[in-house]
Amino acid sequence: MSLSILDILREHPEEFVSGEYISERMHCSRTAVWKHIRKLKAQGYEFEAIPRLGYRLKSAPPKLNMQTLLTDLNTRVLGKQIKLLDVVDSTQRVAHEWVKEGAPEGAMVIAEGQTAGRGRMGRTWHSPQGKGVWMSLVLKPSVPLHLTPQLTLLSAVALCRAIKAVAPVDAGIKWPNDILIGGRKVAGILLESSAEDERLQYVVAGIGVSVNLTSTDYPQELREIATSLRIAGGETVDRAVLIRTFLQQLEYLYELYTEEGFAPIKSLWEALNVTLGHPVSISGATGVVEGVAMEIDDLGALLIKDNSGKRVKVYSGDVQITGNLPGQPGPGAK
Amino acid sequence: MSLSILDILREHPEEFVSGEYISERMHCSRTAVWKHIRKLKAQGYEFEAIPRLGYRLKSAPPKLNMQTLLTDLNTRVLGKQIKLLDVVDSTQRVAHEWVKEGAPEGAMVIAEGQTAGRGRMGRTWHSPQGKGVWMSLVLKPSVPLHLTPQLTLLSAVALCRAIKAVAPVDAGIKWPNDILIGGRKVAGILLESSAEDERLQYVVAGIGVSVNLTSTDYPQELREIATSLRIAGGETVDRAVLIRTFLQQLEYLYELYTEEGFAPIKSLWEALNVTLGHPVSISGATGVVEGVAMEIDDLGALLIKDNSGKRVKVYSGDVQITGNLPGQPGPGAK
Repeated sequence: MSLSILDILREHPEEFVSGEYISERMHCSRTAVWKHIRKLKAQGYEFEAIPRLGYRLKSAPPKLNMQTLLTDLNTRVLGKQIKLLDVVDSTQRVAHEWVKEGAPEGAMVIAEGQTAGRGRMGRTWHSPQGKGVWMSLVLKPSVPLHLTPQLTLLSAVALCRAIKAVAPVDAGIKWPNDILIGGRKVAGILLESSAEDERLQYVVAGIGVSVNLTSTDYPQELREIATSLRIAGGETVDRAVLIRTFLQQLEYLYELYTEEGFAPIKSLWEALNVTLGHPVSISGATGVVEGVAMEIDDLGALLIKDNSGKRVKVYSGDVQITGNLPGQPGPGAK
Repeated sequence: MSLSILDILREHPEEFVSGEYISERMHCSRTAVWKHIRKLKAQGYEFEAIPRLGYRLKSAPPKLNMQTLLTDLNTRVLGKQIKLLDVVDSTQRVAHEWVKEGAPEGAMVIAEGQTAGRGRMGRTWHSPQGKGVWMSLVLKPSVPLHLTPQLTLLSAVALCRAIKAVAPVDAGIKWPNDILIGGRKVAGILLESSAEDERLQYVVAGIGVSVNLTSTDYPQELREIATSLRIAGGETVDRAVLIRTFLQQLEYLYELYTEEGFAPIKSLWEALNVTLGHPVSISGATGVVEGVAMEIDDLGALLIKDNSGKRVKVYSGDVQITGNLPGQPGPGAK
C-alpha cells in the first residue's frame, strides 16, 4: 500500500481522522488500520484516539542527529567517530564488526532501536525505537587483563553520574554495573572484551538506558522491575545530552583511573552503590550464595558474609537484593 | 600442465630422473622444473638431487589422519570434535568462526600448514606444510576473567610436558608460555579469550610446535633463534602422538587446577621454567624493564628486581633472557 497512515494524518494536522476514512483511503480493513497504529506506536509515534472521532498524530519520535550529538562534545577520544543507525539487531554486533574493520578507540554505534539488543548472560535487552539510549562504544584501554573488572565498575560510575546529571532521579549502582532507581532497573552495561594472553585487545561497552519509555512501552513482565528516566523523573530527557554527559564522565574517570589507579574509582562506586550493606542472593557459575554484601575488593569482586557467617568472594553473577532499598517499600529488586 | 613432477618421479621410484627429461615431458623450461621442485620441498616433499643424474623422490610429507589422531585418545572432553584441514590461513581464524557457529568445548582445528599463522603481538608464525603441529583448541573454562593468566601458564606446562614425553629434548618454559630448547624457540601458545563483564566466555588456544622442520625449512632470520624437535632431538617425531599427549596433559592439569587450585600448577611451571633467576629484558606496553626475574605470583605476573634494586611486577610483555641459559653458551635467547 503506497499511502501510509502517517501521510493521511499529516494531511489533517489539527483534526481527528476517522478509522473508517483511513481504511477507505488505504483500501484495508479497520482492524488493519488499528494494527498499523499499534506498530507505529511501538516505533515511538504518539497518537490521540477519541472514540467516534478517530485518530490524530500527536508527535513523531524525536530522532537523534549527528549535529545535535556533536554539539558541545568536548571529549578528546570518545565519540569522535559515530555510526548513527535507525534500527539494527544489536549495536554490539555492529561495533564488533567495526573493530575488525579497524574502528579506532572511542568509536561509537548508536541506534534508534534494536530488534535483538543484548543483555547480560545471554538475555535480550528491550530497546524500543526512539525511546532510549542504545549504544556501543569501542575502548582500547591499556589495562592488564586481570584488571578488566575495574573497568566494569568505572563504567557504572560514569553512567550513574551522567543519569543523575540529566534527570531528577535518585539512581544507584547494583553490583557490578546495573543502574537502579527505587529498586527498578533503568540502565545496564555489558562489557564484551577480547584479549590475547594477558593483554587486553579491546572492549566493546554496550550501554542501554531506558530514557523516555512510558509504562505501556514495556512488555508486561518488565513493568514491575524496570523503569525509565521519564517514569521516575516525571519529564522527558534529551537523549543527546545524556550521551554527551556520559562520554564526558567516562573520559574524565578513565583519565583519573590512569593517573591515580583504582582507589578514587572505588570510592565513587561505593558512594553511589545500592548493594553494600544489603541482604543479597547471587546466582553465579557455582550456584547461589545468600548473605549480606559487605564490600568490594581491588579486583572488583563482591565480598559476601553468607548466612553461616563465612566470608565468600563473588567474581561474577546475578545479584538480587533481597532486603528493601531506599525509596522502595516493595519486595526487592531483580 | 596436466602431468606433474611427482607423477614423473613416481614412474621411476628407484631411479634418478634428469631435469632435461622432466622439462621435455612437462613442456616447460629447466628453470620451471627447478622452481616446481622448490615449491614441493616447501610442502614437505623431500628429494635427492645429484648433478648430471637428476632428481629422485625420497619421501612425501606424512599426513595426519583422523584415525591416527583418535587412536588411543583417552580424553573426556578435549579433541572429541576435530576439523583436520590441509592448508589454511590460520587455524585461530577457523576456530573463532567455529565458536560462533556453536563449537563445543574441546573442539579442535588442525592444519597441515598455515599461510598466515598467528603469533603473539601481531607477529606471524612460520608453519610449513606437514612439518609441525599447527592447531587451535576451543576451551570454555569456568574461571573468572582475572584468573585467565593462570590458564596461560597451565597450557605452557601441558605443552612442555608433552614435548618432553615424545622427544629426547631438554625443553623449558620462558615466561609466560614459550617453549625453548637450548635457548631457541620450539613452540608457542597464543590464548585468545573473549569475556562478558567478569565472565570468561571462551578461549581459543593456538598451539604451534615446530616438530619435523630441518634447518632449511626456516627462513634465514629464524635459523639462529628457532629450533625443532627433529633438529634438537635428532629424530623425527610422530605428530599425532604429540597432539594426543598434549591433549591428555592439558585435560589432566585442568582437572588438577579445578580441584586443587593454582598452587600445584605454579609448582610445575616453576620446575619447568627457564626464566626465573635469569637476567631479563622485558618490552611491554609501558616500555622496557631490565633486571632479574625473581618469581611469579598467583595471578601469573612476573616479579622482576630491576637494575636499581626495585621490585617491578610485569603482567605482559616480550621477555628476552639476557644471561646464558643451560645448554646454550651463546648470546641469549629471544
